[in-house]
Amino acid sequence: MAATQRIKDFLRSEKPEGPCLIVDLKVIEDNFRAFDSAMPGTRIFYAVKANPAPEILKLLNSMGSCFDTASVEEIKMALAAGATPDRVSFGNTIKKQRDIATAHMLGISLFAVDSVEEVEKVAAAAPGAKVFCRILTDGAGAEWPLSRKFGCDPAMASDVLLAAHKLGLTAYGVSFHVGSQQTRLGAWDTALGEAKAIFDTMLQHGITLQMVNLGGGFPTKYLKSVPGTRSYADAIHEGLAKHFGNAIPETIIEPGRGMVGNAGVIKSEVVLISKKHANDNVRWVYLDIGKFGGLAETMDEAIRYPIVTDKDDAEKGLCVIAGPTCDSADVLYEKVPYPLPLTLSVGDEVLIEATGAYTTTYSAVAFNGFPPLKAYVI
Amino acid sequence: MAATQRIKDFLRSEKPEGPCLIVDLKVIEDNFRAFDSAMPGTRIFYAVKANPAPEILKLLNSMGSCFDTASVEEIKMALAAGATPDRVSFGNTIKKQRDIATAHMLGISLFAVDSVEEVEKVAAAAPGAKVFCRILTDGAGAEWPLSRKFGCDPAMASDVLLAAHKLGLTAYGVSFHVGSQQTRLGAWDTALGEAKAIFDTMLQHGITLQMVNLGGGFPTKYLKSVPGTRSYADAIHEGLAKHFGNAIPETIIEPGRGMVGNAGVIKSEVVLISKKHANDNVRWVYLDIGKFGGLAETMDEAIRYPIVTDKDDAEKGLCVIAGPTCDSADVLYEKVPYPLPLTLSVGDEVLIEATGAYTTTYSAVAFNGFPPLKAYVI
Repeated sequence: MAATQRIKDFLRSEKPEGPCLIVDLKVIEDNFRAFDSAMPGTRIFYAVKANPAPEILKLLNSMGSCFDTASVEEIKMALAAGATPDRVSFGNTIKKQRDIATAHMLGISLFAVDSVEEVEKVAAAAPGAKVFCRILTDGAGAEWPLSRKFGCDPAMASDVLLAAHKLGLTAYGVSFHVGSQQTRLGAWDTALGEAKAIFDTMLQHGITLQMVNLGGGFPTKYLKSVPGTRSYADAIHEGLAKHFGNAIPETIIEPGRGMVGNAGVIKSEVVLISKKHANDNVRWVYLDIGKFGGLAETMDEAIRYPIVTDKDDAEKGLCVIAGPTCDSADVLYEKVPYPLPLTLSVGDEVLIEATGAYTTTYSAVAFNGFPPLKAYVI
Repeated sequence: MAATQRIKDFLRSEKPEGPCLIVDLKVIEDNFRAFDSAMPGTRIFYAVKANPAPEILKLLNSMGSCFDTASVEEIKMALAAGATPDRVSFGNTIKKQRDIATAHMLGISLFAVDSVEEVEKVAAAAPGAKVFCRILTDGAGAEWPLSRKFGCDPAMASDVLLAAHKLGLTAYGVSFHVGSQQTRLGAWDTALGEAKAIFDTMLQHGITLQMVNLGGGFPTKYLKSVPGTRSYADAIHEGLAKHFGNAIPETIIEPGRGMVGNAGVIKSEVVLISKKHANDNVRWVYLDIGKFGGLAETMDEAIRYPIVTDKDDAEKGLCVIAGPTCDSADVLYEKVPYPLPLTLSVGDEVLIEATGAYTTTYSAVAFNGFPPLKAYVI
């Protein structure tokens, strides 16, 4: 979680100007190995959207990773990193038919769907492809819950997969996502039970599904402790054995945050510390990065990043933390103020840890004229 | 509000691929004239952050507008559009000292502050500059309220301005912002009363403030009707006369949304329409633009854009509207579903109106691989 020695050395020697993300590839290497050894029979599809830096994609490709992509652009990035098309899935359930056609032309043959309407597009633009149907889970226990945007009711999934079969596609499996930063191990058991019920229904129609896509949701450690990769693997293996018995299907996982979150640290600078009135007991600390510079996941204060300064041995006091733009929504932590050293002052460096995932790409193009978040992958 | 004939003609003749914003400069020209004629004695500082397209800045510069900027980059854009430095303010209360120094070097001499700490930076980096102190207002009545991020308690403002005076700066005035998209006309009266009290306190110290910055907050018409520019001007003039009597100070306004909001229309395309279960009575309509492609102001469903299709004569049914990314937060309207024609289908064009402000720059760099929002200024 904390800044690695390599990151610290980089900051000391390179002294990069302005807010920036530094990603340590060695941490990602370790994370991949941990997933791979905890779940040896499961193929890993890295969720490219978490951080599509070419260096990360190249490293993961060299280690044998597959790639879960959200758009044609991400497919091209995965292929550019050396991935063969059979190791790339188009995991977005919302695709333009012309994008499906492009993916098909690029050799992609595994697509996510969650509706008959989407199946029809895949059948038209990528004949013969494999599809898996995403089902809705309740997301309880996730810090960044998934709303109802993706997936259909489990009861509808077999209709979706039967439609795929009828249209000449391979009804390949079921997918779910227990919610990002999921810390409740039982979430997988429930979802696996629902997946098995769909396997059974399909078998009654003479169709054998082959794959369960266990999705992502593997957490990275922010401030609270989270279960380790091994605990997740155990929970998943138990769930598979319980529901599928001796007929355990092919499985894949799609870690994004769990693969890169703890590999990155954002370096920021204190721009201003002030109070709103003479007797204010909370300081306002303004940083040179905020919600529109990459920290969008502080929305509703959902994710609470560890913030480290050189003065952390000093006594601390509660602060509201905000970004540098003229936008009043650009406040990181206010509902639950953040303890920072009383001796913190303007110009001090601040490290925002565990920011390797969902930061660079969330960054706004030029909001208030501020450039997007720079990133150094080392 | 609606797409102008020029925008419709552009879409028909150019057929731009992918989601894009089209801005009609003629509407901005009309808006500037409306502000200028409704408030003839007030200088207009266009809030560049609302939409910094060079064509817009050049037009407004040619009409005599001044510019309110949030960063050194925005200052450079205003100067590049032809503005002289005396017509550019650095309106962000959160500035790095080196950015203040750069602004000073570029000739900027009007700065916003809201704390003694910020005054000290301005005094050090831009000696002799004019500063105005922003005060907190409650923001009631605003659709996109301003939180407490900017401004200090009115009771603290005279301390801030006295500190500026002592450090050799010109204590120039008071600024407030009644909240973006403010529809309660009385909001200005309250704030003007507080401003006058600060003028009085400063006079007791022998310092004559000269300016009231009335901020922005002028609304653009989304779905609900809003008072016109003239109504705002009347409310402001009444407030000025009531509180300042015969000693009405110099005034400036900082319209952003009110200047460009209704000049832009986003063209989008329906990517998928589906249901979550067989008996769902709400359709999910997925567009090719969402919260991370420029519609960030739909956060908490704060701003409800008018959405127009070619099929609006048909019967309508309630829809959840979501964007195209694999992010579950990328949902535009769900708490209050949006009525769209029952005959709407995949591939249909959808116009999202009144999207000229806070869209292109809010757009994420490459979230999920999707490119930032394209814009055409015509």
